[in-house]
Amino acid sequence: MYRPASRTRDIAPFHVMELLSRARALEAAGRDIVHMEVGEPDFPTPDPILRAGHAALDERRTFYTAALGLPELRQAITDFYASRYGLAVPASRIVVTAGASGALNLALACLCEPGREWLVSDPGYPCNRHFVRSFEGVPKAVAVGPDSNFQPTPESLATHWTARTDGLLVASPANPTGTTLSAPEIAALRQFVVGRGGHLIVDEIYHGLSYEADCPTALAAGDDLWVVQSFSKYFQMTGWRLGWLVVPEPYRRDVEKLAQNFFIAPSTPAQYAALAAFHPETLALLEARRDEFRRRRDYLAPALEALGFRVAARPQGAFYLYCDCSALAADSFTLATRLLEEAGVAATPGLDFGSYQPEKHIRFAYTTAIARLEEAVRRLASFRHL
Amino acid sequence: MYRPASRTRDIAPFHVMELLSRARALEAAGRDIVHMEVGEPDFPTPDPILRAGHAALDERRTFYTAALGLPELRQAITDFYASRYGLAVPASRIVVTAGASGALNLALACLCEPGREWLVSDPGYPCNRHFVRSFEGVPKAVAVGPDSNFQPTPESLATHWTARTDGLLVASPANPTGTTLSAPEIAALRQFVVGRGGHLIVDEIYHGLSYEADCPTALAAGDDLWVVQSFSKYFQMTGWRLGWLVVPEPYRRDVEKLAQNFFIAPSTPAQYAALAAFHPETLALLEARRDEFRRRRDYLAPALEALGFRVAARPQGAFYLYCDCSALAADSFTLATRLLEEAGVAATPGLDFGSYQPEKHIRFAYTTAIARLEEAVRRLASFRHL
Repeated sequence: MYRPASRTRDIAPFHVMELLSRARALEAAGRDIVHMEVGEPDFPTPDPILRAGHAALDERRTFYTAALGLPELRQAITDFYASRYGLAVPASRIVVTAGASGALNLALACLCEPGREWLVSDPGYPCNRHFVRSFEGVPKAVAVGPDSNFQPTPESLATHWTARTDGLLVASPANPTGTTLSAPEIAALRQFVVGRGGHLIVDEIYHGLSYEADCPTALAAGDDLWVVQSFSKYFQMTGWRLGWLVVPEPYRRDVEKLAQNFFIAPSTPAQYAALAAFHPETLALLEARRDEFRRRRDYLAPALEALGFRVAARPQGAFYLYCDCSALAADSFTLATRLLEEAGVAATPGLDFGSYQPEKHIRFAYTTAIARLEEAVRRLASFRHL
Repeated sequence: MYRPASRTRDIAPFHVMELLSRARALEAAGRDIVHMEVGEPDFPTPDPILRAGHAALDERRTFYTAALGLPELRQAITDFYASRYGLAVPASRIVVTAGASGALNLALACLCEPGREWLVSDPGYPCNRHFVRSFEGVPKAVAVGPDSNFQPTPESLATHWTARTDGLLVASPANPTGTTLSAPEIAALRQFVVGRGGHLIVDEIYHGLSYEADCPTALAAGDDLWVVQSFSKYFQMTGWRLGWLVVPEPYRRDVEKLAQNFFIAPSTPAQYAALAAFHPETLALLEARRDEFRRRRDYLAPALEALGFRVAARPQGAFYLYCDCSALAADSFTLATRLLEEAGVAATPGLDFGSYQPEKHIRFAYTTAIARLEEAVRRLASFRHL
C-alpha cells in the first residue's frame, strides 16, 4: 500500500545530511571532525537580536501576526534597502517568510504552472529545482562553468529557453560557488527573461557576505523581479527560520492568499527579534564577522590550491569554495567519504548541487574558525600522502 | 505581464482576515470590538514554555536542527502519546513541523498526485482543499451536516469516492463545528478508505481541547494513518509556528526529503521551548485553561440560542460555535459585516469554511474572557432590535 506521489521520486535527499550524520556518529565514537560541510555560519545569532528575542517573550509576543508579517518589520526591511542600497522598495512589496525556504515556496506556488519549464543554474541550490518539480513544473538545468563565472548569461539562456519556458532562477552570491552578478549582468538577464514574457527570481540570501565589492541587488534592475532574501546567513539567524520575499506589485494579493493558506504567518518571536537585526550595533558586529569570513577565504583558497584542489571560480561572496578535485580523485563523492572517514574533514560532494560535472567538484564551507581550517589543511596534506 | 499560476485562481483568501483588518481600523478609530473571529486562544504561551524559550536563547540554540526535528522533542511527543493516550507511537514516525500548516504541506506534497481527487469535509478547514489544489490534486467537498454531527460517514463517502479518489482529510475536533469522531467512527472511516487503497489524514490540532470526554486519537486505529498535530491550540504556542506530523513508516524517507527541501528544519528556539510543553506544571496550567474554555462554551451556547442563533452541532471540542443564523439574516456574510460595523462584534461568516450552505452559518470563537462574551451577547441582543 506504499504509494507516494510521483514527485517524491524526483526529489533528491541532501547528501550532505548523510555525511553530517556519519560525522556525528564518528564524533560520538571519539573522533574529531572539522566541519566544512554545512552552509551555516558558525557564529551564534548576534546578542542584540537575542536580547530583542528575550524582550519579545517577556512581552508575550506569542500570537499570530499578519500573514505578510509584522508591519514594522516590513518597514524596517524597506528602510534597510534605502540605507544600504539607496533603493526605494515599498514595504507593501515585502513579505516576511519562514526563511528563504518559505519565500521560494510562495514565489513558485504563485508562478509555477504545471508542465512549464523553469531554468535553474547547475551547479546551484538544489531546493530550487525541487520546488519547481513539487508544483509540477519542469526544472531545466543550465550548465554553468568557470568561463561565465558559474552564472548564466543571455547567450547560455538562449540555447535553453523554449516556447515552454516560464522563468529563470539565479542566485548572487551563488551557492555553491560564491560567484556574484554585476548590475549590468543582472540587467541583461532581466532583459532576456522579461523580453520573453518570463519571470525572474533572484536569490540574494548571501547578500552582505561579499568580499570584493558590495553586491548589487537585482531590485535596482526593475520592479518586475522577485527577490528571495533571508535572515539566516548575513544576519546569522538560521535556526529562527526567517526570511523575506520581494514581490512585484501585481502579485501581492496572490502571494498573500498563498501565505495565509500555506503558513498562516511567520514566527512571531523571530520577527520581533529580527527588528534588532538592522540596529547600528548589530550591523557593526555583522560587518566585523564579514571581515572574519573574508580572512578565512583568503587563508583557505590558496591553501587548498597548494594541495591540488583548483578553486573553480574566484569566490566573491557567500562562505564556500567550490573546488575542482579531479586532479586528486576520480569521483568527489568517494573523495568526500574518504576525507571524512580517513582524514576527519567533512565537505560536500558536487552531487548535492546538480548534474553538471558533480563528480569533479567538492564544496568546502569556511564556516569554522581559522585554527580549525588550518587543522583541516594539515589533515588534507597528510591524507594526500597516505 | 501579470501571469500567476492557474492554481492561484482557486485559492480563496481568508475572509476573516478582511474582517479582522476592518476591526483593527474601527479600533484605531476608537471603537471597542469584541473579537470572536480568529481561531487563536487568547491565553499567552504558558510561562514554563516561555522560560524554556529564554533558556534556549541564553544557551545560543539558534542553529539548524535536523530536518525532522530535535530528537529529544520527537521523543517527548512519543512519551506524550504513551502517557496521555496509552499508545506506542515510535519517535521515528514523528516529524516536527512549522505548525500544522507545515505538517499538512508535507503530507499532501508526499501523497497528492496531480489530477487525483481528495475528499474534504464541507464545512471544514479551508487550507485543506487549498493544499490539495496547490499540489495539483482535485479537492472534492463532502457536505456534512447536523444529521452526521458535521462529520463524514462511510455512507456519505460512498457517494463521493470514485476510481479517481486517493484520500480523505478529516478533523476531530473539527473546525468550524467543534464536533469529534469516536474511536469506532474513526475505525469505520479508516476501513472505508484503506479498503479502497486510499490515504487517510486526520487533523487532531484541537486535541486536548475537548469538553465531554477525551478525544481518541486516530493513531489507535492503525499505523497506516497520517495525523496532523500542533503546539498552537491546546499548548497555546500559535505564534511560534510549531506542530508535528505522524507518518506511516514506509513514507518516512519521502517526508524527510521533502522536509529538507521545503523547510530545512523547524524553528530551533520554538523546539527547545516546546520541550517544556509536556512538563507536569505546564499540563496542569493547560488543563485549568481547558476548564475555562468549557465554562465559556457552557455560557455562550445557550446565550446565542436565546438570541435566535441555532448552534448547529453540539460542540464537543475546539473553541467554536458554528451557528445557523438563517432565522436572523438571509446571508451570513452580510450579517457578519453588519455585526462588526453596527454592533462591534467580530465573527466569521460560513464562507470561509466551504460551499455547503455558508450563507446560513456564522462561527463564533470563544477565545475571549466570559465578561467579553457577555458584552458581545448584550450587543447582539440590542442589534436584533435595531
